[in-house]
Amino acid sequence: MYSLAIERLINDISKLPGLGRRSAQRIALYLLKNKDRTLLPLIQTLQESHSKILECLICGNVDMINPCNICSNTKRDKNSICIVEDISDLWAFERIGIYKGLYHVLGGSLSAINGIGTQELTINKLLKRIKNEDTKEVILALSTTMEGQTTSHVIADKLESFKDLIVTRLAQGIPIGGEVHYLDENTLNAAFQSRKKII
Amino acid sequence: MYSLAIERLINDISKLPGLGRRSAQRIALYLLKNKDRTLLPLIQTLQESHSKILECLICGNVDMINPCNICSNTKRDKNSICIVEDISDLWAFERIGIYKGLYHVLGGSLSAINGIGTQELTINKLLKRIKNEDTKEVILALSTTMEGQTTSHVIADKLESFKDLIVTRLAQGIPIGGEVHYLDENTLNAAFQSRKKII
Repeated sequence: MYSLAIERLINDISKLPGLGRRSAQRIALYLLKNKDRTLLPLIQTLQESHSKILECLICGNVDMINPCNICSNTKRDKNSICIVEDISDLWAFERIGIYKGLYHVLGGSLSAINGIGTQELTINKLLKRIKNEDTKEVILALSTTMEGQTTSHVIADKLESFKDLIVTRLAQGIPIGGEVHYLDENTLNAAFQSRKKII
Repeated sequence: MYSLAIERLINDISKLPGLGRRSAQRIALYLLKNKDRTLLPLIQTLQESHSKILECLICGNVDMINPCNICSNTKRDKNSICIVEDISDLWAFERIGIYKGLYHVLGGSLSAINGIGTQELTINKLLKRIKNEDTKEVILALSTTMEGQTTSHVIADKLESFKDLIVTRLAQGIPIGGEVHYLDENTLNAAFQSRKKII
Protein backbone atom coordinates (compact mmCIF):
# COMPACT_ATOMS: atom_id res chain seq x y z
CA MET A 1 0.00 0.00 0.00
CA TYR A 2 2.83 2.45 0.78
CA SER A 3 5.75 2.94 -1.56
CA LEU A 4 8.94 1.11 -0.61
CA ALA A 5 10.76 4.05 0.97
CA ILE A 6 7.77 4.99 3.14
CA GLU A 7 7.30 1.37 4.19
CA ARG A 8 10.98 1.19 5.20
CA LEU A 9 10.76 4.47 7.09
CA ILE A 10 7.71 3.37 9.09
CA ASN A 11 9.28 -0.02 9.66
CA ASP A 12 12.56 1.36 10.99
CA ILE A 13 10.80 3.81 13.28
CA SER A 14 8.49 1.12 14.65
CA LYS A 15 11.57 -0.87 15.73
CA LEU A 16 12.46 1.81 18.28
CA PRO A 17 11.55 0.82 21.84
CA GLY A 18 8.04 1.77 22.94
CA LEU A 19 6.78 2.54 19.45
CA GLY A 20 4.12 0.56 17.62
CA ARG A 21 3.14 0.75 14.00
CA ARG A 22 0.54 3.46 14.57
CA SER A 23 2.90 5.83 16.36
CA ALA A 24 5.62 5.06 13.81
CA GLN A 25 3.21 6.08 11.03
CA ARG A 26 2.42 9.28 12.83
CA ILE A 27 6.11 10.13 13.30
CA ALA A 28 6.91 9.24 9.68
CA LEU A 29 4.20 11.59 8.43
CA TYR A 30 5.42 14.35 10.72
CA LEU A 31 8.93 13.94 9.32
CA LEU A 32 7.77 13.77 5.68
CA LYS A 33 5.37 16.69 5.78
CA ASN A 34 8.08 19.25 6.28
CA LYS A 35 11.27 17.43 5.44
CA ASP A 36 13.70 20.34 5.60
CA ARG A 37 12.46 21.58 8.95
CA THR A 38 12.01 18.25 10.74
CA LEU A 39 13.76 15.38 8.97
CA LEU A 40 16.99 17.15 8.07
CA PRO A 41 17.82 18.43 11.60
CA LEU A 42 17.06 14.96 12.99
CA ILE A 43 19.46 13.36 10.50
CA GLN A 44 22.14 15.85 11.51
CA THR A 45 21.64 15.19 15.21
CA LEU A 46 21.77 11.42 14.71
CA GLN A 47 24.95 11.72 12.64
CA GLU A 48 26.54 13.89 15.30
CA SER A 49 25.48 11.35 17.94
CA HIS A 50 27.05 8.56 15.93
CA SER A 51 30.39 10.32 15.62
CA LYS A 52 30.64 12.11 18.97
CA ILE A 53 29.04 9.95 21.66
CA LEU A 54 31.28 7.26 23.10
CA GLU A 55 30.97 4.52 25.67
CA CYS A 56 33.14 5.13 28.73
CA LEU A 57 35.67 2.31 28.88
CA ILE A 58 35.77 2.45 32.67
CA CYS A 59 32.15 2.54 33.82
CA GLY A 60 30.01 1.95 30.69
CA ASN A 61 28.30 5.36 30.71
CA VAL A 62 27.92 7.27 27.43
CA ASP A 63 29.53 10.67 26.98
CA MET A 64 31.44 12.83 24.53
CA ILE A 65 34.70 12.14 26.34
CA ASN A 66 36.31 8.88 27.41
CA PRO A 67 36.70 8.34 30.36
CA CYS A 68 33.34 10.01 30.90
CA ASN A 69 32.66 13.22 32.81
CA ILE A 70 31.83 11.30 35.96
CA CYS A 71 34.89 9.02 35.93
CA SER A 72 37.24 11.92 35.12
CA ASN A 73 35.69 14.37 37.60
CA THR A 74 38.27 14.84 40.39
CA LYS A 75 35.58 16.12 42.77
CA ARG A 76 33.73 12.80 42.81
CA ASP A 77 34.39 10.24 45.52
CA LYS A 78 36.63 7.56 43.96
CA ASN A 79 36.12 5.28 46.96
CA SER A 80 32.54 4.48 46.13
CA ILE A 81 31.09 2.55 43.15
CA CYS A 82 27.34 2.38 42.56
CA ILE A 83 26.42 -0.65 40.44
CA VAL A 84 23.47 -0.14 38.09
CA GLU A 85 21.91 -2.36 35.45
CA ASP A 86 21.61 0.28 32.80
CA ILE A 87 22.66 3.79 31.82
CA SER A 88 19.09 4.98 32.40
CA ASP A 89 19.49 3.99 36.09
CA LEU A 90 22.70 6.04 36.23
CA TRP A 91 20.78 8.97 34.75
CA ALA A 92 18.04 8.54 37.37
CA PHE A 93 20.63 8.88 40.15
CA GLU A 94 22.30 11.86 38.49
CA ARG A 95 18.94 13.54 38.09
CA ILE A 96 18.40 13.68 41.85
CA GLY A 97 22.09 14.44 42.41
CA ILE A 98 22.44 12.83 45.84
CA TYR A 99 25.27 10.49 44.95
CA LYS A 100 28.79 11.81 44.50
CA GLY A 101 30.75 8.62 43.83
CA LEU A 102 31.43 6.61 40.68
CA TYR A 103 29.20 4.18 38.78
CA HIS A 104 29.51 0.81 37.11
CA VAL A 105 27.01 -0.07 34.39
CA LEU A 106 26.44 -3.84 34.20
CA GLY A 107 24.61 -3.77 30.89
CA GLY A 108 21.56 -5.66 32.18
CA SER A 109 20.90 -8.40 34.69
CA LEU A 110 21.43 -12.15 34.68
CA SER A 111 18.63 -13.95 32.88
CA ALA A 112 18.66 -17.60 31.85
CA ILE A 113 15.63 -17.06 29.61
CA ASN A 114 17.30 -14.24 27.67
CA GLY A 115 20.64 -16.05 27.63
CA ILE A 116 22.41 -13.42 29.71
CA GLY A 117 25.12 -14.96 31.88
CA THR A 118 27.96 -13.39 33.83
CA GLN A 119 30.04 -13.13 30.65
CA GLU A 120 27.42 -10.91 29.00
CA LEU A 121 27.62 -8.43 31.89
CA THR A 122 30.61 -6.34 32.94
CA ILE A 123 31.08 -8.22 36.21
CA ASN A 124 34.71 -9.20 35.60
CA LYS A 125 35.54 -5.64 34.67
CA LEU A 126 33.94 -4.55 37.94
CA LEU A 127 36.07 -6.97 39.98
CA LYS A 128 39.21 -5.66 38.29
CA ARG A 129 38.16 -2.09 39.01
CA ILE A 130 37.63 -2.82 42.70
CA LYS A 131 41.01 -4.55 42.86
CA ASN A 132 42.87 -1.68 41.17
CA GLU A 133 40.99 1.37 42.38
CA ASP A 134 40.94 1.91 46.13
CA THR A 135 37.22 1.12 46.44
CA LYS A 136 35.78 1.25 49.97
CA GLU A 137 32.04 0.91 49.30
CA VAL A 138 30.04 -0.83 46.61
CA ILE A 139 26.33 0.02 46.38
CA LEU A 140 24.16 -2.58 44.64
CA ALA A 141 21.44 -0.44 43.02
CA LEU A 142 19.77 -3.14 40.96
CA SER A 143 16.09 -3.70 40.30
CA THR A 144 14.11 -5.72 42.84
CA THR A 145 12.98 -8.07 40.09
CA MET A 146 13.92 -11.74 40.21
CA GLU A 147 16.74 -11.12 37.70
CA GLY A 148 18.03 -8.04 39.50
CA GLN A 149 18.11 -9.79 42.86
CA THR A 150 19.86 -12.85 41.43
CA THR A 151 22.47 -10.59 39.89
CA SER A 152 22.91 -8.77 43.21
CA HIS A 153 23.50 -12.09 44.99
CA VAL A 154 26.02 -13.30 42.41
CA ILE A 155 27.98 -10.04 42.63
CA ALA A 156 27.79 -9.98 46.44
CA ASP A 157 29.21 -13.52 46.51
CA LYS A 158 32.16 -12.48 44.37
CA LEU A 159 32.79 -9.43 46.55
CA GLU A 160 33.01 -11.40 49.81
CA SER A 161 36.71 -12.07 49.30
CA PHE A 162 37.58 -8.37 49.28
CA LYS A 163 38.76 -7.46 52.78
CA ASP A 164 37.33 -4.25 54.31
CA LEU A 165 34.99 -3.63 51.39
CA ILE A 166 31.55 -2.40 52.43
CA VAL A 167 28.76 -3.77 50.21
CA THR A 168 25.30 -2.20 50.53
CA ARG A 169 22.03 -2.48 48.65
CA LEU A 170 19.15 -0.02 48.25
CA ALA A 171 16.51 -0.09 51.01
CA GLN A 172 13.31 -2.00 50.20
CA GLY A 173 9.92 -0.87 51.47
CA ILE A 174 6.86 1.22 50.77
CA PRO A 175 7.51 3.73 47.99
CA ILE A 176 6.97 7.35 49.07
CA GLY A 177 3.36 8.32 48.35
CA GLY A 178 2.36 4.65 48.37
CA GLU A 179 -0.79 3.46 50.11
CA VAL A 180 -0.48 0.35 52.23
CA HIS A 181 -3.63 -1.34 50.94
CA TYR A 182 -2.42 -1.03 47.35
CA LEU A 183 0.96 -2.67 48.04
CA ASP A 184 1.72 -6.10 46.65
CA GLU A 185 2.44 -8.85 49.19
CA ASN A 186 6.17 -8.94 48.58
CA THR A 187 6.68 -5.23 49.11
CA LEU A 188 4.51 -5.21 52.22
CA ASN A 189 6.42 -8.19 53.55
CA ALA A 190 9.79 -6.51 52.85
CA ALA A 191 8.63 -3.26 54.43
CA PHE A 192 7.40 -5.12 57.52
CA GLN A 193 10.53 -7.25 57.91
CA SER A 194 12.80 -4.21 57.58
CA ARG A 195 10.74 -2.00 59.87
CA LYS A 196 12.73 0.70 61.59
CA LYS A 197 12.67 1.65 65.26
CA ILE A 198 11.73 5.29 65.60
CA ILE A 199 11.37 5.78 69.37
CA MET B 1 23.65 16.51 33.54
CA TYR B 2 24.05 14.89 30.10
CA SER B 3 26.79 15.95 27.71
CA LEU B 4 25.73 18.34 24.98
CA ALA B 5 25.38 15.79 22.18
CA ILE B 6 23.24 13.44 24.29
CA GLU B 7 21.07 16.34 25.43
CA ARG B 8 20.53 17.37 21.81
CA LEU B 9 19.73 13.79 20.79
CA ILE B 10 17.13 13.35 23.54
CA ASN B 11 15.73 16.79 22.80
CA ASP B 12 15.31 16.19 19.08
CA ILE B 13 13.70 12.80 19.63
CA SER B 14 11.28 14.22 22.22
CA LYS B 15 10.04 16.71 19.62
CA LEU B 16 8.56 13.86 17.57
CA PRO B 17 4.78 13.57 17.94
CA GLY B 18 3.59 11.36 20.78
CA LEU B 19 6.98 11.15 22.49
CA GLY B 20 7.75 12.62 25.89
CA ARG B 21 11.14 13.08 27.50
CA ARG B 22 11.10 9.67 29.15
CA SER B 23 10.43 7.74 25.95
CA ALA B 24 12.94 9.94 24.11
CA GLN B 25 15.58 8.99 26.67
CA ARG B 26 14.77 5.34 26.23
CA ILE B 27 15.03 5.58 22.45
CA ALA B 28 18.28 7.58 22.67
CA LEU B 29 19.85 4.93 24.89
CA TYR B 30 18.70 2.17 22.57
CA LEU B 31 20.34 3.97 19.66
CA LEU B 32 23.57 4.71 21.54
CA LYS B 33 24.08 1.29 23.04
CA ASN B 34 24.73 -0.38 19.72
CA LYS B 35 25.35 2.48 17.35
CA ASP B 36 26.41 0.54 14.29
CA ARG B 37 23.47 -1.85 14.43
CA THR B 38 20.70 0.61 15.34
CA LEU B 39 21.70 4.23 14.80
CA LEU B 40 23.49 3.82 11.47
CA PRO B 41 20.66 2.00 9.63
CA LEU B 42 18.17 4.58 10.95
CA ILE B 43 20.33 7.43 9.62
CA GLN B 44 20.47 5.70 6.23
CA THR B 45 16.70 5.21 6.11
CA LEU B 46 16.05 8.82 7.06
CA GLN B 47 18.50 10.05 4.42
CA GLU B 48 16.84 7.88 1.81
CA SER B 49 13.44 9.22 2.90
CA HIS B 50 14.69 12.76 2.58
CA SER B 51 15.95 12.26 -0.96
CA LYS B 52 13.35 9.86 -2.36
CA ILE B 53 9.96 10.66 -0.84
CA LEU B 54 8.07 13.47 -2.55
CA GLU B 55 4.77 15.24 -2.04
CA CYS B 56 2.33 14.61 -4.90
CA LEU B 57 1.68 17.97 -6.57
CA ILE B 58 -1.85 16.94 -7.51
CA CYS B 59 -3.37 15.42 -4.37
CA GLY B 60 -0.87 16.07 -1.54
CA ASN B 61 -0.09 12.41 -0.84
CA VAL B 62 3.54 11.34 -0.29
CA ASP B 63 5.19 8.84 -2.60
CA MET B 64 8.40 8.06 -4.47
CA ILE B 65 6.90 9.27 -7.73
CA ASN B 66 5.12 12.50 -8.62
CA PRO B 67 2.20 12.40 -9.45
CA CYS B 68 1.77 9.67 -6.85
CA ASN B 69 0.85 6.04 -7.49
CA ILE B 70 -2.83 6.75 -6.86
CA CYS B 71 -3.08 9.82 -9.12
CA SER B 72 -1.14 8.10 -11.92
CA ASN B 73 -2.97 4.76 -11.67
CA THR B 74 -5.12 4.47 -14.80
CA LYS B 75 -7.33 1.87 -13.09
CA ARG B 76 -8.60 4.31 -10.50
CA ASP B 77 -11.83 6.20 -11.01
CA LYS B 78 -10.86 9.74 -12.09
CA ASN B 79 -14.45 10.94 -11.66
CA SER B 80 -14.37 10.76 -7.89
CA ILE B 81 -12.33 12.80 -5.38
CA CYS B 82 -12.32 11.92 -1.69
CA ILE B 83 -11.34 14.94 0.43
CA VAL B 84 -9.35 14.12 3.58
CA GLU B 85 -7.71 16.31 6.20
CA ASP B 86 -4.46 14.46 6.35
CA ILE B 87 -2.35 11.81 4.63
CA SER B 88 -3.01 9.47 7.57
CA ASP B 89 -6.72 9.58 6.65
CA LEU B 90 -5.85 8.66 3.06
CA TRP B 91 -3.81 5.74 4.42
CA ALA B 92 -6.78 4.64 6.54
CA PHE B 93 -8.98 4.45 3.42
CA GLU B 94 -6.29 2.65 1.41
CA ARG B 95 -5.86 0.15 4.22
CA ILE B 96 -9.44 -1.07 3.88
CA GLY B 97 -9.25 -0.75 0.10
CA ILE B 98 -12.93 -0.03 -0.56
CA TYR B 99 -12.42 3.25 -2.39
CA LYS B 100 -11.14 3.25 -5.96
CA GLY B 101 -11.21 6.96 -6.82
CA LEU B 102 -8.73 9.81 -6.24
CA TYR B 103 -7.95 11.79 -3.10
CA HIS B 104 -7.35 15.36 -2.15
CA VAL B 105 -5.37 16.07 1.02
CA LEU B 106 -6.39 19.38 2.60
CA GLY B 107 -3.47 19.58 5.00
CA GLY B 108 -5.66 20.06 8.09
CA SER B 109 -8.95 21.71 8.94
CA LEU B 110 -10.00 25.34 9.42
CA SER B 111 -9.21 26.54 12.93
CA ALA B 112 -9.33 30.14 14.08
CA ILE B 113 -7.44 29.26 17.27
CA ASN B 114 -4.54 27.69 15.38
CA GLY B 115 -4.60 30.41 12.71
CA ILE B 116 -5.55 28.03 9.91
CA GLY B 117 -7.71 29.79 7.30
CA THR B 118 -8.71 28.73 3.80
CA GLN B 119 -5.35 29.95 2.46
CA GLU B 120 -3.46 27.48 4.68
CA LEU B 121 -5.42 24.55 3.23
CA THR B 122 -5.38 23.32 -0.37
CA ILE B 123 -8.99 24.39 -1.02
CA ASN B 124 -8.24 26.59 -4.04
CA LYS B 125 -6.16 23.80 -5.57
CA LEU B 126 -9.14 21.50 -5.05
CA LEU B 127 -11.52 23.87 -6.84
CA LYS B 128 -9.11 24.08 -9.80
CA ARG B 129 -8.88 20.29 -9.90
CA ILE B 130 -12.63 19.89 -10.00
CA LYS B 131 -12.85 22.51 -12.75
CA ASN B 132 -10.15 20.87 -14.90
CA GLU B 133 -10.64 17.17 -14.22
CA ASP B 134 -14.01 15.76 -15.11
CA THR B 135 -15.06 15.23 -11.49
CA LYS B 136 -18.52 13.78 -10.92
CA GLU B 137 -18.50 13.10 -7.18
CA VAL B 138 -16.75 14.73 -4.25
CA ILE B 139 -16.76 12.85 -0.93
CA LEU B 140 -16.18 14.96 2.16
CA ALA B 141 -14.37 12.55 4.51
CA LEU B 142 -13.45 15.02 7.23
CA SER B 143 -13.49 14.52 10.98
CA THR B 144 -16.75 15.13 12.82
CA THR B 145 -14.99 17.60 15.10
CA MET B 146 -16.11 21.24 15.14
CA GLU B 147 -13.16 22.17 12.89
CA GLY B 148 -13.75 19.31 10.48
CA GLN B 149 -17.45 20.10 10.15
CA THR B 150 -16.80 23.81 9.62
CA THR B 151 -14.31 22.93 6.90
CA SER B 152 -16.85 20.59 5.28
CA HIS B 153 -19.45 23.38 5.23
CA VAL B 154 -17.03 25.92 3.74
CA ILE B 155 -16.01 23.50 1.00
CA ALA B 156 -19.62 22.43 0.34
CA ASP B 157 -20.54 26.11 -0.08
CA LYS B 158 -17.82 26.60 -2.66
CA LEU B 159 -18.91 23.47 -4.53
CA GLU B 160 -22.53 24.57 -4.92
CA SER B 161 -21.75 26.48 -8.11
CA PHE B 162 -20.51 23.36 -9.92
CA LYS B 163 -23.39 22.04 -12.00
CA ASP B 164 -24.08 18.28 -11.86
CA LEU B 165 -21.43 17.69 -9.21
CA ILE B 166 -22.52 15.21 -6.51
CA VAL B 167 -21.20 16.13 -3.05
CA THR B 168 -21.48 13.54 -0.28
CA ARG B 169 -20.21 13.23 3.28
CA LEU B 170 -19.50 10.16 5.42
CA ALA B 171 -22.48 8.73 7.32
CA GLN B 172 -22.73 9.66 11.00
CA GLY B 173 -24.08 7.28 13.62
CA ILE B 174 -23.18 4.54 16.08
CA PRO B 175 -19.71 3.13 15.42
CA ILE B 176 -19.72 -0.63 14.74
CA GLY B 177 -19.27 -2.48 18.03
CA GLY B 178 -20.52 0.57 19.94
CA GLU B 179 -22.96 0.23 22.81
CA VAL B 180 -25.88 2.65 22.87
CA HIS B 181 -25.59 3.52 26.58
CA TYR B 182 -21.94 4.51 26.14
CA LEU B 183 -22.60 6.90 23.25
CA ASP B 184 -22.20 10.65 23.74
CA GLU B 185 -25.32 12.78 23.25
CA ASN B 186 -24.26 14.19 19.90
CA THR B 187 -23.59 10.81 18.33
CA LEU B 188 -26.81 9.34 19.68
CA ASN B 189 -28.72 12.34 18.37
CA ALA B 190 -27.08 12.05 14.92
CA ALA B 191 -27.77 8.31 14.81
CA PHE B 192 -31.42 8.88 15.76
CA GLN B 193 -32.00 11.70 13.30
CA SER B 194 -30.45 9.71 10.43
CA ARG B 195 -32.23 6.47 11.30
CA LYS B 196 -32.81 4.21 8.32
CA LYS B 197 -35.99 2.40 7.34
CA ILE B 198 -35.34 -1.34 7.19
CA ILE B 199 -38.78 -2.81 6.61
